[in-house]
Amino acid sequence: MKFSKLFIPTTKETPSDATLPSHQFLIRAGFINQQGSGLYNYMPMGKIVLDKIRKIVKEELDAADCSEVQLGFVTPIELWDKSGRAEKMGKELLRIKDRKDNDFVLSPTNEEAIVELVKNRITSFKDLPVNLYQINTKFRDEARPRFGLMRGREFLMKDGYSFHESVEDMQREFAHMEETYKKIFTRLGLDFRVVEADSGAIGGTGSKEFHVLADSGEDTIIVCDSCEYGANIETIFEDEDVVNSLNDLTYEELQEKAVGKKCSCGGELSYTKGIEAGHIFQLGSTYSEALDAKFLDSNGKSQPFQMGTYGIGVSRIMAAVIEQSHDERGCIWTKETAPFMIDIIVSSAKKEDELNAGMKIYEELKDNGIEVMIDDRKKERFGFKMGDFELIGFPYAIVIGKKLQDGLVELIDRKTGEKTDVALDDILDFVKKL
Amino acid sequence: MKFSKLFIPTTKETPSDATLPSHQFLIRAGFINQQGSGLYNYMPMGKIVLDKIRKIVKEELDAADCSEVQLGFVTPIELWDKSGRAEKMGKELLRIKDRKDNDFVLSPTNEEAIVELVKNRITSFKDLPVNLYQINTKFRDEARPRFGLMRGREFLMKDGYSFHESVEDMQREFAHMEETYKKIFTRLGLDFRVVEADSGAIGGTGSKEFHVLADSGEDTIIVCDSCEYGANIETIFEDEDVVNSLNDLTYEELQEKAVGKKCSCGGELSYTKGIEAGHIFQLGSTYSEALDAKFLDSNGKSQPFQMGTYGIGVSRIMAAVIEQSHDERGCIWTKETAPFMIDIIVSSAKKEDELNAGMKIYEELKDNGIEVMIDDRKKERFGFKMGDFELIGFPYAIVIGKKLQDGLVELIDRKTGEKTDVALDDILDFVKKL
Repeated sequence: MKFSKLFIPTTKETPSDATLPSHQFLIRAGFINQQGSGLYNYMPMGKIVLDKIRKIVKEELDAADCSEVQLGFVTPIELWDKSGRAEKMGKELLRIKDRKDNDFVLSPTNEEAIVELVKNRITSFKDLPVNLYQINTKFRDEARPRFGLMRGREFLMKDGYSFHESVEDMQREFAHMEETYKKIFTRLGLDFRVVEADSGAIGGTGSKEFHVLADSGEDTIIVCDSCEYGANIETIFEDEDVVNSLNDLTYEELQEKAVGKKCSCGGELSYTKGIEAGHIFQLGSTYSEALDAKFLDSNGKSQPFQMGTYGIGVSRIMAAVIEQSHDERGCIWTKETAPFMIDIIVSSAKKEDELNAGMKIYEELKDNGIEVMIDDRKKERFGFKMGDFELIGFPYAIVIGKKLQDGLVELIDRKTGEKTDVALDDILDFVKKL
Repeated sequence: MKFSKLFIPTTKETPSDATLPSHQFLIRAGFINQQGSGLYNYMPMGKIVLDKIRKIVKEELDAADCSEVQLGFVTPIELWDKSGRAEKMGKELLRIKDRKDNDFVLSPTNEEAIVELVKNRITSFKDLPVNLYQINTKFRDEARPRFGLMRGREFLMKDGYSFHESVEDMQREFAHMEETYKKIFTRLGLDFRVVEADSGAIGGTGSKEFHVLADSGEDTIIVCDSCEYGANIETIFEDEDVVNSLNDLTYEELQEKAVGKKCSCGGELSYTKGIEAGHIFQLGSTYSEALDAKFLDSNGKSQPFQMGTYGIGVSRIMAAVIEQSHDERGCIWTKETAPFMIDIIVSSAKKEDELNAGMKIYEELKDNGIEVMIDDRKKERFGFKMGDFELIGFPYAIVIGKKLQDGLVELIDRKTGEKTDVALDDILDFVKKL
């Protein structure tokens, strides 16, 4: 892709309400822009990143025998009345009226709709289990939308739902989804922890959260230094009064409380901050009973489906990557989430030899399947292009500059800042090994 | 994909309100289901087809130097007030109020939002032209939602917007988009006509519609038998009274009126029915002026952007394919839109040799990149599987049955019904030539 051809409006201006690095940098680097409170547009580079995350989620879910569907975003209120959530969810559930004065809801999640979809269409245990998911727009009318993509009102979520003939089979799938989610977060290049969690309002009996570790995380989680164990703060204190007071404690006080607590593996427990980016629930039959969705089991008896439900905050992950991986100059994308792997910076695109050399490398890398951008802008100077490279956060840059006369270009690692001179003929091999 | 693993709830029941073949068959074959008036869910096979259409649209637009974005679906009413459309669009524009009593709109199209996005981000003629598009959910609160995906309220649309420094450059892009749209509709395997159209409420000065030819089309269009010419009925009658009365005429009366009318090429004109599936407009500066979106031209003068706007009804095309291509037994997908190219029907999946032979062909075709389904269901009989094959409308079936003992399988062409015996060893070669 040519930089001059893509609409990438980088800017030095930081929105006044943007306190988090991801919020600041995603806007400054031209990935997103705000269209209203908690409402964001994805500009071309933002759309590329969003699609990359989406693709990884889809690939791993499809490989885990889940099937993608797409449910209506506007859902009739009747469904929500049946489950009792029309009442229970309060104002976060945005109700709307159509021209005939009928009531609908902008879906914040879709348990009701998916149960209604499966109801009377799966009638026998022989057709179970089934795991259906969608990656679709959601709306939650947050009281205080903030932090950019982290807590928007309209957002992109993957929501999945599995249907089973028994609790045991649902728990098998729950474990299978935990493994699948681990693959997804690992592929995304994220440092994350799976933590035991309370299931909250959704009404389940067992649940785990996937937290991307970052200093700016809204959640405090307990992790073991020796094993994979992680938990919500609530879960390791048995005294209810202590649990209720946890939110009032400072970080230091929390750390103090953790002293002496041991993991079952014997390791030390400590606190850290996490961004909740995934959540899996053992849901049971709450919704299938409420919506009277049943199947015939192997004894010919009518049973409500046992369900699991599984969410991933796709657009939130876009912000979480940057919360975990940035510096004072801008974004540092992981290899799997980067809009392009390499940014070829032509120092002075007005100089024909530099532009030609850049284009040659560009074509060579592109022909070899490497995702490459060339900053061919004629009106911008080298310093400006370097600034954009650092702000946008491509993993690597190849600088075509003065060393060209010696047959060399400079490869820069965005994360480490390391610079390496590479001979023109060696670039492809060098890049392939990155 | 194994039939037994995918959620494909085919049914013999036709919804009482489904008068169009696409509406009936898409529901009966388990592609979609209705969740409310004009609101549809896509089940796994429906999602696959929708994604295929979407992919073709994206590939051709990207090849035509357009960049994909994703705009918020919920847009602030202020934008619509500025353009005057909050008033003008009437009840089709669904207004909603959030928890703080602020007014928003469910986007039926996004001229205002895209102008606001580009405003102050493109400031110089040097950064023009730009062509941005999205493929995103839209909502139009139709008074009478009907015909399934053909006239739903929530639907998937590709909407594109181009920005230019001059009317001439906008017209160049308009012609470029016409060619791009022709490529898209051709790749989709559709019989279509580009027709001269009135631009309607959107406020343009020149526009063309892309009609998929089908008996059930809501629009009557004029086509030339000798050349590519096509037009809306209104456009060839100069007398306004005649134009106003056209909608009251029967099809026969219309045909009569056409007698003697000649195309400029000398060919005969006749009437046919079309489904509007694409629409391109020369929009001019209506929206950029209303929203005060300007750039500096080469003389340093501030000018409003000249715009073009380009729509494709992505979910409507899914229905249009079937309106154009079906028979009394079900869907007949075109090769590019089919969920899978080949359905391997194992006559009796309980017979091990048949199932094994089927699986072997399945793996072989899959390994060669052919999109293949195997109907491995054990509880269903051959006749039922054939019925599903015809209802769903895969382009071809390979039947594994009695002839297996002679080393033969039967290949069936869904469209022509033609049956061919093929030797087991020749299948891959045979299929590759289809």
